Amino acid sequence: MKAASLIGVIVAMAGLYLGAVMEGSNPMAVLNPSAMLIVLGGTFGATMAGTSFDKIKGIPTLYKKAFLSEAPDLPGRMQELVGYAEKARRDGLLALDEQTSSIEDPFTRKGLQLVVDGTDPELVAEVLEAENDAMRKRHQAGAQPFEKAGGFAPTMGIIGTVFGLIHVLENLDAPETLGPSISAAFIATLLGVASANVLYLPVANRLKQLSAEELHFRTMTLEGILSIQAGDNPRVVAEKLAAFVPPAQRPSEGDDTAAEGAQARAAA
Amino acid sequence: MKAASLIGVIVAMAGLYLGAVMEGSNPMAVLNPSAMLIVLGGTFGATMAGTSFDKIKGIPTLYKKAFLSEAPDLPGRMQELVGYAEKARRDGLLALDEQTSSIEDPFTRKGLQLVVDGTDPELVAEVLEAENDAMRKRHQAGAQPFEKAGGFAPTMGIIGTVFGLIHVLENLDAPETLGPSISAAFIATLLGVASANVLYLPVANRLKQLSAEELHFRTMTLEGILSIQAGDNPRVVAEKLAAFVPPAQRPSEGDDTAAEGAQARAAA
Amino acid sequence: MKAASLIGVIVAMAGLYLGAVMEGSNPMAVLNPSAMLIVLGGTFGATMAGTSFDKIKGIPTLYKKAFLSEAPDLPGRMQELVGYAEKARRDGLLALDEQTSSIEDPFTRKGLQLVVDGTDPELVAEVLEAENDAMRKRHQAGAQPFEKAGGFAPTMGIIGTVFGLIHVLENLDAPETLGPSISAAFIATLLGVASANVLYLPVANRLKQLSAEELHFRTMTLEGILSIQAGDNPRVVAEKLAAFVPPAQRPSEGDDTAAEGAQARAAA
Amino acid sequence: MKAASLIGVIVAMAGLYLGAVMEGSNPMAVLNPSAMLIVLGGTFGATMAGTSFDKIKGIPTLYKKAFLSEAPDLPGRMQELVGYAEKARRDGLLALDEQTSSIEDPFTRKGLQLVVDGTDPELVAEVLEAENDAMRKRHQAGAQPFEKAGGFAPTMGIIGTVFGLIHVLENLDAPETLGPSISAAFIATLLGVASANVLYLPVANRLKQLSAEELHFRTMTLEGILSIQAGDNPRVVAEKLAAFVPPAQRPSEGDDTAAEGAQARAAA
Amino acid sequence: MKAASLIGVIVAMAGLYLGAVMEGSNPMAVLNPSAMLIVLGGTFGATMAGTSFDKIKGIPTLYKKAFLSEAPDLPGRMQELVGYAEKARRDGLLALDEQTSSIEDPFTRKGLQLVVDGTDPELVAEVLEAENDAMRKRHQAGAQPFEKAGGFAPTMGIIGTVFGLIHVLENLDAPETLGPSISAAFIATLLGVASANVLYLPVANRLKQLSAEELHFRTMTLEGILSIQAGDNPRVVAEKLAAFVPPAQRPSEGDDTAAEGAQARAAA
Repeated sequence: MKAASLIGVIVAMAGLYLGAVMEGSNPMAVLNPSAMLIVLGGTFGATMAGTSFDKIKGIPTLYKKAFLSEAPDLPGRMQELVGYAEKARRDGLLALDEQTSSIEDPFTRKGLQLVVDGTDPELVAEVLEAENDAMRKRHQAGAQPFEKAGGFAPTMGIIGTVFGLIHVLENLDAPETLGPSISAAFIATLLGVASANVLYLPVANRLKQLSAEELHFRTMTLEGILSIQAGDNPRVVAEKLAAFVPPAQRPSEGDDTAAEGAQARAAA
Repeated sequence: MKAASLIGVIVAMAGLYLGAVMEGSNPMAVLNPSAMLIVLGGTFGATMAGTSFDKIKGIPTLYKKAFLSEAPDLPGRMQELVGYAEKARRDGLLALDEQTSSIEDPFTRKGLQLVVDGTDPELVAEVLEAENDAMRKRHQAGAQPFEKAGGFAPTMGIIGTVFGLIHVLENLDAPETLGPSISAAFIATLLGVASANVLYLPVANRLKQLSAEELHFRTMTLEGILSIQAGDNPRVVAEKLAAFVPPAQRPSEGDDTAAEGAQARAAA
Repeated sequence: MKAASLIGVIVAMAGLYLGAVMEGSNPMAVLNPSAMLIVLGGTFGATMAGTSFDKIKGIPTLYKKAFLSEAPDLPGRMQELVGYAEKARRDGLLALDEQTSSIEDPFTRKGLQLVVDGTDPELVAEVLEAENDAMRKRHQAGAQPFEKAGGFAPTMGIIGTVFGLIHVLENLDAPETLGPSISAAFIATLLGVASANVLYLPVANRLKQLSAEELHFRTMTLEGILSIQAGDNPRVVAEKLAAFVPPAQRPSEGDDTAAEGAQARAAA
Repeated sequence: MKAASLIGVIVAMAGLYLGAVMEGSNPMAVLNPSAMLIVLGGTFGATMAGTSFDKIKGIPTLYKKAFLSEAPDLPGRMQELVGYAEKARRDGLLALDEQTSSIEDPFTRKGLQLVVDGTDPELVAEVLEAENDAMRKRHQAGAQPFEKAGGFAPTMGIIGTVFGLIHVLENLDAPETLGPSISAAFIATLLGVASANVLYLPVANRLKQLSAEELHFRTMTLEGILSIQAGDNPRVVAEKLAAFVPPAQRPSEGDDTAAEGAQARAAA
Repeated sequence: MKAASLIGVIVAMAGLYLGAVMEGSNPMAVLNPSAMLIVLGGTFGATMAGTSFDKIKGIPTLYKKAFLSEAPDLPGRMQELVGYAEKARRDGLLALDEQTSSIEDPFTRKGLQLVVDGTDPELVAEVLEAENDAMRKRHQAGAQPFEKAGGFAPTMGIIGTVFGLIHVLENLDAPETLGPSISAAFIATLLGVASANVLYLPVANRLKQLSAEELHFRTMTLEGILSIQAGDNPRVVAEKLAAFVPPAQRPSEGDDTAAEGAQARAAA
């Protein structure tokens, strides 16, 4: 299910909200304007200072991506690539030309187009690996603001609380306001720690996981494209790609495939 | 003994329980509904937000695995592989064909089947290494939710405590409830730190150790299969594999084996 | 926009200032002479002790760089390099000689000059990679004082606060000054945490990001120069460089370029 | 001196004991049964849960090793290997056969036996490197329980203290026992932090250092054995091995050796 | 200026001292015998337990090195090596023989002596790289006690403080000594944090920086020696070495050198 990340954030928020209500607190107290200015403003500023406007502008898109991306369909892509391998084996590599334009995934399309165009295998690998490497770096740079915000937010919360405590301690002559004042000071800590652990760090984790999955997906695709270009038997292609698919999702029993593929190859 | 991990968790829990009882506390106080909502709910949500439903659904299986897995039998596997090497040396590689189907371990079976099928040694290594690499990544991804939960739980505990303290401080006019209220607030910290250090982090450590052991086991198997395929003398196979077995578990005195293996090879 | 980092620091400071004012504190209280001596002096000394005068002297330049550097113009450089490739394809490599002296970027100029001079491709790559490697190390060493200061400042703040608390506790017989004294002691913590999270760590993050961008930029340039030297078709050059440019900034639709480039190459 | 680690632990304990006595505390107060149950029991359980019985059973041996191991004798081994090189140069490699059985170090003996048996140099390197790699992993796994215990102990201490504080706060109506009760609660923190920093982490550091020294020692031995097998002039062997010995311990002035070795080689 | 590190430590100490005086504290209070026993004794013992007597004995030498080492003279070494290249080009490699004995730097002398002796280039590289690798490991091991002490000192301070607080809390019936007693307890924390951040961690940072500089210096030297041995034109040598020198310190404008060097090479 693709909304795991969004549901996770909602579950975490609900847990904190209900738990706070149950112990008699008013969880809405965290929406304190001065604490929000210090914690959210300070975190936003410190994060922006360490990155660029482009990264900051990309944050809403990345939230959407973290909340709504689906896991890549490894078995589906494997079958798709084995299908191309079968066609190439039967009708030659050029027969793939008519199919490439209708391929939805740009990476697969670009790779197969390079193969159809008779590009040197090493150049195909080089161009596609450069794409993957650049993607990996982009993803890493994209997750960074969330990680940095997750690090700055609690310390901004502490800054807010210490500011508040300093103010309280300077005015110890009004003991009846002491409790509420200290209480208000701690709201900044609460806001800082809670925002980091609910809104920033889980999203950073999710983005890194999505990046790893996408890279795994593309590495499998690259392996398949190179195997097709090398003229491998479709069974050998399937066997090579099966290693990328978790055992539980493999279309047929892995060992048979392996054995048959090798026989096919030995016979080729 | 395979239940070391389960016993460890029980020992840790018993230590905390008895120690708390001995100092006069009621350890069952941690089963406070509001603290549990905040700490367990918040940790669960934040962990889920950073991963996917599949990972979350796999958690019970991983607990079972962490609690019940046995260490791989390195000397047994070594002897098994040396046995195949002897058979292959005596009767030829194809003689292994009848045995492969009865091999219990899928990885060994797949590898030997590839060898029997006459697959190119480099392709055998490539396919099996791809399996191992994919397994390593799967294990890493499997241990991650436990590590992340171990990081989120104490901060969720702090959030719960700060919520409670804010509530207490707002109501300082009822000094007779002050102690119990602060006491209740600290239960969240207790629950967060204790769950992280007893239920999440030790299991993450255990899963990572199991993964390293399994990878070591498979690397030895791969080395043995390639050595068999290369037609190595069984003694050379034994000598190569001996390095993977801890000295105390080696079937015969390592140096003799090495020397004899080398003599055998020199004579071959 | 190039001043993102400066604006970020200002936003963070404004958030802290306004939030503090709103909760009734006087944010200017942090400008306490003794706290500043301990925190700023201690941080400066500890940072300088771990580095050298040269690094310390370079700090103002690095602040300016962090606050005012623009992101490198990847599409512009790509088009520039493709232009050289076209000229070289049309008129020969030596035709680039007249252009090299007018190239603004020293790295591109040095690289193309080496190419025009008929230097061996491997030596070109070696010299330029050595430049990049040395640059990377210089940048890393440049960001280090900011990272170290970001680590020392909060602990210096704690030292200042503990000094203050010790002083307060020794003189508990004057309860009327207790609050203000403890308050003053906490200013050191505030100053330490705030300076680290607003002035040092965000700048360290920014410098590291600028370094990564510059390295990416130069790696693209190096790839382009080697491709020009190899006599690649301009379309192949464009295709190779496109992988370095984020998809959204690519001049033409990546896949077409790739396809056409490969066709051109196949036809070459 | 080989007992540096044991003396270090004793010095640390003595410092803590005497310092506590001097400030009027009773350091034996840490031997509080409930704190020990929570801290030692909890740490032991959490550490065991993350590892296996074998690792736990190996702990006493590792303590003995950490406390009593001597630094490897690099110059001695260098001279021993140069001696073998001289004998091999004078009388042929086979002349080493009679010596190998009397070599005390199993690694050197195994390596030279392989050489005497006429094993292929690449196989010698492969077998010995596999031994070293397996040793490195075993050592790493051996130091892990100490590192993990060093991480768990302080948090178990905090758990014990929070348990105690919760108990105290629930019973604020008996102010005369307040001080001693809070005092007792803090003993758990003390025990956790002290055991981690005196008994676990220094031993983990020591084991890691011993492992690095042993690996360095074996790498030098491997280099020497391969150099002997290659028929290098004893002076070249000495020159190659000298780089592994710290300058202050080198038998003769390094540069002379290098120069003479090279001359000898040039003349060979 | 070579004493940057010493000046840094003095600046940090002066900042802490003056700041403490200015807020009315007596900074000499940290020289409390019981706190010093616990913090300095505990840190020394724990550090020694994790290392060896040799490392401990080397600490005064390393302090001297950290405080008094000068930055290596990269442009000077570059010119020296280009000078040898010119002589070798003019009079042959053997002409360097008379110079080598008067070279002050042992690494350069050893390298050039190997070259003059007609040693195989690969062996020259291997011997010198082994020297560098061993130096890097020695430096790493040398900085470790300072890093470890920087980690142990604050926790030893906490142990001292908790010991003191336990003692205070056990004797709450003497409220007039409460303040001074708690105050004394906090001196241990102060001493631990201050010693770590002024005396240990900055020195560890400095030693690591010196090691990196020395390695960079030696890598440049090695590159130059190999280039001289290969018979490169002195301008090519200069061009290769220029990449190791920061742009601001390069003797002539880098691009010209590069261009001329390449022309010279092309003409050679």
